[in-house]
Amino acid sequence: MTANTYDVIVIGGGISGLSAAKLLVESGLNPVLLEARNRVGGRTYTVQNKETKWVDLGGAYIGPTQNRILRIAKQYGVKTYKVNEDESLVHYVKIPKEAPWRAPHAEEWDKITMQQLIDQICWTRSARRFATLFVNVNVTSEPHEVSALWFLWYVKQCGGTMRIFSTTNGGQERKFAGGANQISQAMARELGDRVKLGRAVYSIDQTGDLVEVRTVNEEIYKAKYVILAIPPSLNLKIHFNPELPPLRNQLIHRVPMGSVIKCMVYYKENFWRKKGYCGSMVIEEEEAPIGLTLDDTKPDGSVPAIMGFILARKSRKLASLTKEERRICEIYARVLGTEEALNPVHYEEKNWCEEEYSGGCYTAYFPPGIMTQYGRVLREPVGRLYFAGTETATEWSGYMEGAVQAGERASREILCTMGKLHASQIWQSEPESLDVPARPFVTTFWERNLPSVGGVFKFMGVSSFLALATAAGVVAYKKGLLPLSQPVL
Amino acid sequence: MTANTYDVIVIGGGISGLSAAKLLVESGLNPVLLEARNRVGGRTYTVQNKETKWVDLGGAYIGPTQNRILRIAKQYGVKTYKVNEDESLVHYVKIPKEAPWRAPHAEEWDKITMQQLIDQICWTRSARRFATLFVNVNVTSEPHEVSALWFLWYVKQCGGTMRIFSTTNGGQERKFAGGANQISQAMARELGDRVKLGRAVYSIDQTGDLVEVRTVNEEIYKAKYVILAIPPSLNLKIHFNPELPPLRNQLIHRVPMGSVIKCMVYYKENFWRKKGYCGSMVIEEEEAPIGLTLDDTKPDGSVPAIMGFILARKSRKLASLTKEERRICEIYARVLGTEEALNPVHYEEKNWCEEEYSGGCYTAYFPPGIMTQYGRVLREPVGRLYFAGTETATEWSGYMEGAVQAGERASREILCTMGKLHASQIWQSEPESLDVPARPFVTTFWERNLPSVGGVFKFMGVSSFLALATAAGVVAYKKGLLPLSQPVL
Repeated sequence: MTANTYDVIVIGGGISGLSAAKLLVESGLNPVLLEARNRVGGRTYTVQNKETKWVDLGGAYIGPTQNRILRIAKQYGVKTYKVNEDESLVHYVKIPKEAPWRAPHAEEWDKITMQQLIDQICWTRSARRFATLFVNVNVTSEPHEVSALWFLWYVKQCGGTMRIFSTTNGGQERKFAGGANQISQAMARELGDRVKLGRAVYSIDQTGDLVEVRTVNEEIYKAKYVILAIPPSLNLKIHFNPELPPLRNQLIHRVPMGSVIKCMVYYKENFWRKKGYCGSMVIEEEEAPIGLTLDDTKPDGSVPAIMGFILARKSRKLASLTKEERRICEIYARVLGTEEALNPVHYEEKNWCEEEYSGGCYTAYFPPGIMTQYGRVLREPVGRLYFAGTETATEWSGYMEGAVQAGERASREILCTMGKLHASQIWQSEPESLDVPARPFVTTFWERNLPSVGGVFKFMGVSSFLALATAAGVVAYKKGLLPLSQPVL
Repeated sequence: MTANTYDVIVIGGGISGLSAAKLLVESGLNPVLLEARNRVGGRTYTVQNKETKWVDLGGAYIGPTQNRILRIAKQYGVKTYKVNEDESLVHYVKIPKEAPWRAPHAEEWDKITMQQLIDQICWTRSARRFATLFVNVNVTSEPHEVSALWFLWYVKQCGGTMRIFSTTNGGQERKFAGGANQISQAMARELGDRVKLGRAVYSIDQTGDLVEVRTVNEEIYKAKYVILAIPPSLNLKIHFNPELPPLRNQLIHRVPMGSVIKCMVYYKENFWRKKGYCGSMVIEEEEAPIGLTLDDTKPDGSVPAIMGFILARKSRKLASLTKEERRICEIYARVLGTEEALNPVHYEEKNWCEEEYSGGCYTAYFPPGIMTQYGRVLREPVGRLYFAGTETATEWSGYMEGAVQAGERASREILCTMGKLHASQIWQSEPESLDVPARPFVTTFWERNLPSVGGVFKFMGVSSFLALATAAGVVAYKKGLLPLSQPVL
């Protein structure tokens, strides 16, 4: 073997690529990982400085049922801490999480946008407004941009509306103490010099005995197999020889990344807690830049901060404005009812729309018509190319958890092809985390007091009720009162 | 100047890039053109062999008001010939062709799909079926995939429903004798060794004094300016330094290319003409692979052939089938009512969905929500990068004509930046072709006999009437009878 020849080349040093490479090494193979940026972590990104100690400007939240990412965190001694309080269960529509294109009514639902579904099932303007925010927050895109089938699948494969949208017992129950990027850094450290930074891949040639991969910094890597652990649309950054099959060639033009700017405002004091607010705000006002906030104060009470998302349409409208012009603190002052919000001591932000090697955040969305026509080739191998990345996961796709599931599955596909494990072992379930167990959701006060209409209708009923309560369109919820206001990234 | 240093690097050797380079040379500049494939012409592609003499497997049709492409063809002595007969005018909705995002109701229309608009304005099932075919044929995508605003703009900038969809006096009146690719070949011949084939570009670096462009075959080109004359989503093939601004970085993930397979069936005799059929078929049956056909017999009557399109959803469904499994001749036999159709002597096809360096055909489409949010950066220069390609045109975007308009406009933007012409000269109107003049459309028999409802409603009224006439869903129209059945590619 020559210096640059490996068993497997993993492209992408986010959590998915790193967990793929990790599993390959543990299985006795010799992988290399090529990452375009000069850092690992992909859509997780932790900044450390004296003002913030540390801050997650990318993916941050984790919760029960995300057992794979919790397993890896535990292995490296990365601790979690709780973000917030109590919530609830709604069973969801029947969409097979591994093949949503085979759902009953799949074609019908794929032909309409979430906006159309919302218009059909939400009878009040405030319910529709809340439903819009629900889409904005969960997938950083607009209801009229996304397929109803895809969005329903997305929520389903996260465990349903309450699991995806809840803090306690849901996808945003916890954060990693010290930042999410520690997971990637720990894996990268373990992989040692197998991880090559600053290696943007521009071509993959499968025509020879070994697959040949070229990087922008003019290196050539060779291997028996390749795992692409990058968002589907970033496959377009690569020139393929031979060309991809027609469906995959077109799929990768059709699944754009969402739009979000994550904004952290730091204060001298945690003034909102004194006023009895937890720091979570749901802000529906069209003129407000931020749609949703969460307290981002450190678990020991230090470094008081509010995390806010500029979502979807607002991130595009505000992209060209300066931080000052966006007037984030003004809206906080109005919502929290105090001028103390006008005097931040520090600010951090990350506009994920400008990242060439992410394309956006949190994840890819499917416009109408794409899931049923192209979904089946999302993770179908092409010759010696295998596909990972959180978009190819069947549980918590779009999250750190999905990234691990996808990375490990892609590695097992290769191990299976090499005869090292049986096809039935490719997809593996994960034992539940002992530290972060999942509890069934119990119904909330609101659900118990609303007529039962079942499934998504029931949830939209709940939401409608909540949204009605927001009256003026600008509301700060008290801690633990309501089952909403939780972001994903 | 070193060997690989130029005034302008043009990326893309389709009609847009070639006409950009041509104008730059005529203006006294020193451009080079880099083309990824080993041929020029992009989405035009003419094959020559003894069975067909020549056949356009890509863009082929041209017509009145396409004065720029007609001017260039004439310059090189490429003749046109007429395809078919007589039709009509409907004035269209008020959408500014240069800035559809500023149309009245732009946001409202951009939030709905064409399917929603069709469901609103077509009251009968057969009208809706025809409207679906109208979208399939004109933009090789499905009504539920595309923004209503974008589709209305698309039709508008081609001169309206009749101009876009007509043979005589419309976008498909003529073809080039000898094939469309002659235009590109003639321009390439004139440009000589300035045209470099097999040069797929993978990186553009604007951080130095000159812009530096690298190709997959490991060459470096330098220039003061760059024109990207490629579809917007193929910008993703390139690694940019510095990264693109956020809106452009996300736009290029959001405008997929349509889906079409162009199929040519050759026969010993032109049996359909004997039966009084012109060879045009509108086939609405869901199980039929082909949606629309046109006679492709040579102007002198030799090489009898039928051109057929496999469009949008059908191209994806049938991509994996063999030519035999698709049973194209069987549907022709049923529609034309003769078994003679079952005995072809030759077959040619081109599946544009598999072309890495086109991504699909005929053109990019805009899913709901994208035009109003991202449209304004479609041709906005980024530093020293300028944008051509038919998708950036304001007249006949999606056509060969739009390619020329865009290429020449981008070259003039650079000439303006260099102080060689005034900003008011960038956008130039084109004198009408003397050989192919446009006549106003007169109303058809159908329109004269239908109640006047104006605009798109009127057209859909016409269509609805026509569609009703198709009854069984399988119909062959007699030559000249009906104002439909004209493809674009």
